[in-house]
Amino acid sequence: MANQVKVGIIGASGYSGEELTRLLLTHPQAELVAVTSRQYAGQTVAQIFPRFAHYPQARTLRFTEPNPELLARQAQVVFLALPHGVSAEFAIPLLQAGCQVIDLSADFRLRSAAVYQEFYGHEHPAPELLATAVYGLPEVYRDAIKGAQLVASPGCYPTSILLPTLPLLRAGLIHAHGIIADSMSGVSGAGRKAELDYLFVECNESVRPYGVPKHRHLSEIEQELSLAAGSPVIIQFTPHLIPVNRGILTTLYLAPTTHIAGAAAAAELNARITACYQAAYAHEPFVRLLEGKALPDTKNVVGTNVVEIAWRLDPRTGRLLVMSAEDNIVKGASGQAVQSLNIMCGYPETTGLL
Amino acid sequence: MANQVKVGIIGASGYSGEELTRLLLTHPQAELVAVTSRQYAGQTVAQIFPRFAHYPQARTLRFTEPNPELLARQAQVVFLALPHGVSAEFAIPLLQAGCQVIDLSADFRLRSAAVYQEFYGHEHPAPELLATAVYGLPEVYRDAIKGAQLVASPGCYPTSILLPTLPLLRAGLIHAHGIIADSMSGVSGAGRKAELDYLFVECNESVRPYGVPKHRHLSEIEQELSLAAGSPVIIQFTPHLIPVNRGILTTLYLAPTTHIAGAAAAAELNARITACYQAAYAHEPFVRLLEGKALPDTKNVVGTNVVEIAWRLDPRTGRLLVMSAEDNIVKGASGQAVQSLNIMCGYPETTGLL
Amino acid sequence: MANQVKVGIIGASGYSGEELTRLLLTHPQAELVAVTSRQYAGQTVAQIFPRFAHYPQARTLRFTEPNPELLARQAQVVFLALPHGVSAEFAIPLLQAGCQVIDLSADFRLRSAAVYQEFYGHEHPAPELLATAVYGLPEVYRDAIKGAQLVASPGCYPTSILLPTLPLLRAGLIHAHGIIADSMSGVSGAGRKAELDYLFVECNESVRPYGVPKHRHLSEIEQELSLAAGSPVIIQFTPHLIPVNRGILTTLYLAPTTHIAGAAAAAELNARITACYQAAYAHEPFVRLLEGKALPDTKNVVGTNVVEIAWRLDPRTGRLLVMSAEDNIVKGASGQAVQSLNIMCGYPETTGLL
Amino acid sequence: MANQVKVGIIGASGYSGEELTRLLLTHPQAELVAVTSRQYAGQTVAQIFPRFAHYPQARTLRFTEPNPELLARQAQVVFLALPHGVSAEFAIPLLQAGCQVIDLSADFRLRSAAVYQEFYGHEHPAPELLATAVYGLPEVYRDAIKGAQLVASPGCYPTSILLPTLPLLRAGLIHAHGIIADSMSGVSGAGRKAELDYLFVECNESVRPYGVPKHRHLSEIEQELSLAAGSPVIIQFTPHLIPVNRGILTTLYLAPTTHIAGAAAAAELNARITACYQAAYAHEPFVRLLEGKALPDTKNVVGTNVVEIAWRLDPRTGRLLVMSAEDNIVKGASGQAVQSLNIMCGYPETTGLL
Repeated sequence: MANQVKVGIIGASGYSGEELTRLLLTHPQAELVAVTSRQYAGQTVAQIFPRFAHYPQARTLRFTEPNPELLARQAQVVFLALPHGVSAEFAIPLLQAGCQVIDLSADFRLRSAAVYQEFYGHEHPAPELLATAVYGLPEVYRDAIKGAQLVASPGCYPTSILLPTLPLLRAGLIHAHGIIADSMSGVSGAGRKAELDYLFVECNESVRPYGVPKHRHLSEIEQELSLAAGSPVIIQFTPHLIPVNRGILTTLYLAPTTHIAGAAAAAELNARITACYQAAYAHEPFVRLLEGKALPDTKNVVGTNVVEIAWRLDPRTGRLLVMSAEDNIVKGASGQAVQSLNIMCGYPETTGLL
Repeated sequence: MANQVKVGIIGASGYSGEELTRLLLTHPQAELVAVTSRQYAGQTVAQIFPRFAHYPQARTLRFTEPNPELLARQAQVVFLALPHGVSAEFAIPLLQAGCQVIDLSADFRLRSAAVYQEFYGHEHPAPELLATAVYGLPEVYRDAIKGAQLVASPGCYPTSILLPTLPLLRAGLIHAHGIIADSMSGVSGAGRKAELDYLFVECNESVRPYGVPKHRHLSEIEQELSLAAGSPVIIQFTPHLIPVNRGILTTLYLAPTTHIAGAAAAAELNARITACYQAAYAHEPFVRLLEGKALPDTKNVVGTNVVEIAWRLDPRTGRLLVMSAEDNIVKGASGQAVQSLNIMCGYPETTGLL
Repeated sequence: MANQVKVGIIGASGYSGEELTRLLLTHPQAELVAVTSRQYAGQTVAQIFPRFAHYPQARTLRFTEPNPELLARQAQVVFLALPHGVSAEFAIPLLQAGCQVIDLSADFRLRSAAVYQEFYGHEHPAPELLATAVYGLPEVYRDAIKGAQLVASPGCYPTSILLPTLPLLRAGLIHAHGIIADSMSGVSGAGRKAELDYLFVECNESVRPYGVPKHRHLSEIEQELSLAAGSPVIIQFTPHLIPVNRGILTTLYLAPTTHIAGAAAAAELNARITACYQAAYAHEPFVRLLEGKALPDTKNVVGTNVVEIAWRLDPRTGRLLVMSAEDNIVKGASGQAVQSLNIMCGYPETTGLL
Repeated sequence: MANQVKVGIIGASGYSGEELTRLLLTHPQAELVAVTSRQYAGQTVAQIFPRFAHYPQARTLRFTEPNPELLARQAQVVFLALPHGVSAEFAIPLLQAGCQVIDLSADFRLRSAAVYQEFYGHEHPAPELLATAVYGLPEVYRDAIKGAQLVASPGCYPTSILLPTLPLLRAGLIHAHGIIADSMSGVSGAGRKAELDYLFVECNESVRPYGVPKHRHLSEIEQELSLAAGSPVIIQFTPHLIPVNRGILTTLYLAPTTHIAGAAAAAELNARITACYQAAYAHEPFVRLLEGKALPDTKNVVGTNVVEIAWRLDPRTGRLLVMSAEDNIVKGASGQAVQSLNIMCGYPETTGLL
């Protein structure tokens, strides 16, 4: 097929890397030319991920040691699915060699190296790249992604919070102050790590909060909310771990800028919120605005690149509840990265994602 | 053993009734003389609940048709584990015959028949009883439970919200306005009902909000918060369904009455909150105040009558986060009812519950 | 695209019907022109199955009342995803009108109306069709499927048992006598039925056998084994229900016709078994023969049309263990039916299934 | 209370050790004087196992480094909940100091050091103890346990297989040859080990066989079956891992010594099997023989020391199916060990276990 793109993945052995491998093995316009993994170098994709063994290429493509110089010669676009803090080491030589890079870690999501240091606990390894990196949320930064050399693909929690919040904030329909995001995530969000906390027996029949009150993802969430609000925004964010493989459900507590006095005022505000969401997302292929009595449910988005959003004005409290559901590994990670790939390459944005 | 109490259960075939049956079969000072179930009348407890078959009494005790007159002659204390709206029919004759009644439904939890009608959609069937019923939250109403004829045992969500909130509210440490409770509940909370929504395949690998924004349990939660605050309180409450059998995790967003300016102010407020919780619960056998880095986890309370509580002041937002975990069927229903039984009978409060 | 086929589904509201809907909505050469459901008539596919709402057609295609005459005018191939016993009512008029029919129920899988009556407890409603129906196991009956008017698509347990067993039986490598099949199935196998037994709380943290010792699926399993063996075969089959949404794992205990005396004999027999499986399945796109230490795992096939097969000779007992894993809703139902569609229409067999 | 026994646990940090801790904290006649764990030395039981924090002793009892000499002075009976291969190091000094030892590992379950070496891959560290150790299956070796110095408590799979099989074998009702045991186990059976294979995401929505065809537990199973049969027995055993925390379900395929020709013969044999089980287990407090249509279900035994057993003669195949369910951590490990403690101390056998 004309206009194929050659792509590679550095760090393909985690849950995001695995899903990215699947999406690129089946992408009709991408040719997956290299996957790297120190741990699995020499073995085929099918050996490590037997679930992909029915894709012919999975039986021949072998993991290699990560070598950015070599990858730069093989691939036009390289995905980095690495732990936070180590992407720069690979991104710098790839960019210098002219590759486009889509990084799934948090390393290039922040504009400020100081904020990075505050939240991640160490100096940023390549602060000069922060100015050029594009925050890869296609529904917001589509144009910038088009010409980007370095895309910093957003995290799973940020995606589930930003997509429902940004349009309302930009439209002035909610206060920037006092936002609360309460999220529940499946265990794949913790990564494929051999730690007691994530054993089946420790997670099954369990639900627990963690990382309160200052989770690292707050940094990129607040950066993007602040940009939308035009002033610094600080939010409350509580993640919880629940016993599902995949899926994030976020419930947002927002304060409308309009006081709801009576049913008529509530109905009018509701209409404005609906109009705001329609304007933002009615034509977005991966945002599903729920109607009627429907509420988000992770089982309706798992395995897809879709975010579900529903909202309810509460006349008793005057608050606006917005709820979203996504697959943390697809729209919250690898699917979103492929969405950026499609934009960068000029493909229809849903290519390989429906 | 001296001082045994004869007890009966009306409506023993749901999840709360089943757990109540277990607790009373093994209670060292209660003799379970009758269990009723229209559906299972004539069969033994062991036939319907094979998991109890190793208790000798379960193999002989048979479900009967519910007959309050007969029960009043057999038992001194009768538990009602019935759906909302049908308890009155049984409570009235039992009370008239001199029985003490512990009702696990919502029917007698509200002081106001008007609020009942607003939230439950029909007239209260016995409004005259509302004045005498005691809200069966032992940590709050222990003295009143002692002499009660009719105990209205609290719901699962209310227990998980009230226990962490009431001490702070009474101490004036938090504002009564703006309270948000975000809860996740296991599927047993929906009852043993043959509905598609609660099939394994519909709940497994799923998390979803429901009943927003005006869940019925709000009525009793707000009643009790208002009594503690001395003025009407309206809160925001969002329940979510998660794929565990049992357990409720509630995260509360509260506004301290003291502004936290700087680390010293935060430390001081934190000390006051800790002191407040210690004063309220240090000697409570079923409230576990978590220390250090520990956060509530439903797996640590499932199968017990314990509520876990932890809190964090967030210096970035000025808010207080309080998190609680309980077993919705034990402390949220049947265990709490047995705790009331112990109080009514003058037994040590932990009898049969440890 | 040239050579599109118009297809319809009668009874699209169960788990198999839902998956079939997904497969046909995304099939590049099938046009889904009608889906029927008495319960949901008038509503769109997206309303009933929100997870498909990002497929544009799901937002416009509406469920209709089942009307075979109408369907016969709209569609060339009609899938029946109905409970056992009611397919004939729809198959007869569809066939008479010239449609091709792929039935996912058990109604046309047996060649003998007497066996049907023995296992299903009522007279066969259209015994004259049994002679013309083709058992839709593509790996075995590919040629017959090509020209079939009526395909009886195999059940989930039969597929997981027949694919590993038939080649060995036909090659004379195992005895036809004494076969034991022990299977574990996910809860979707029970269908979308509002019954207490399949509630989340009743299935989660539970594993249990059922339907022993004479499960209905035995009839079609033994029919096909007997045909392969050339003489009547009776097997032992025990299904178990386990708490997963999807997936069947079957462990087969087989008796080799060769006595394994010593390591050399075992190695030689093992080589013959491997050769037998290679000959049967090396070129099958949906059968994965596992090598080395790998054993089947349902998580590696869920969501795919693949069956995984591994085998071990046990020198201690002389027995051959064969293990298989499949997705009960895909290869065990809807995927297999689409595979037959592809064969009937002359498409590459993997079309829409990779 | 009179006649208390002081007990200690070496290796209390795994799943069996944790459950043993719970059982001994709540045992009315045992005083838990010491728990050891290299990893957690210095911390209280409540800190490591928050779920036990409502037992007052859990808040004061601290883990210590394992020191058999010290334990021998503190405790009369010491439980070893250690990995296979390291129990001897502790058992020897404890026994020499006059302690009674109940070992939950496999180290003393075999009578033959050679068989131990064959199955465990290393020389037995204390072969002289094998002759004196008693296999701690109370339903079989009750008398020997009474006076034992060293009890080798059986494994989880062996218990689930031996209890249903031994009475039939001793009564000559089944052939010793050709026994097949197909088992499904919850993930706690793999222990609390930080390995990728047992992560939530790797086990949830998965079912898989493992350890085929020669699992280590075969050695003790075959030893006990051989003793019952009076001649060497070799069986087929296939374990599977399923996504539940606890529970083992075993399905046994057995060959009756009586040929079932016709319904009368089947009924007669069935009566003899029932009589055999009744004779063996009707008075056993922890064996539940299921009647009527009931089949074992792990959810009915989890958290208890009970084994459920049901059986079906299959007139089509002539085989006898026997199915059992148990909690692998209770009857399959810690509960069974406490049952032995009760026997050794002359307490009623159900003490602390109901």
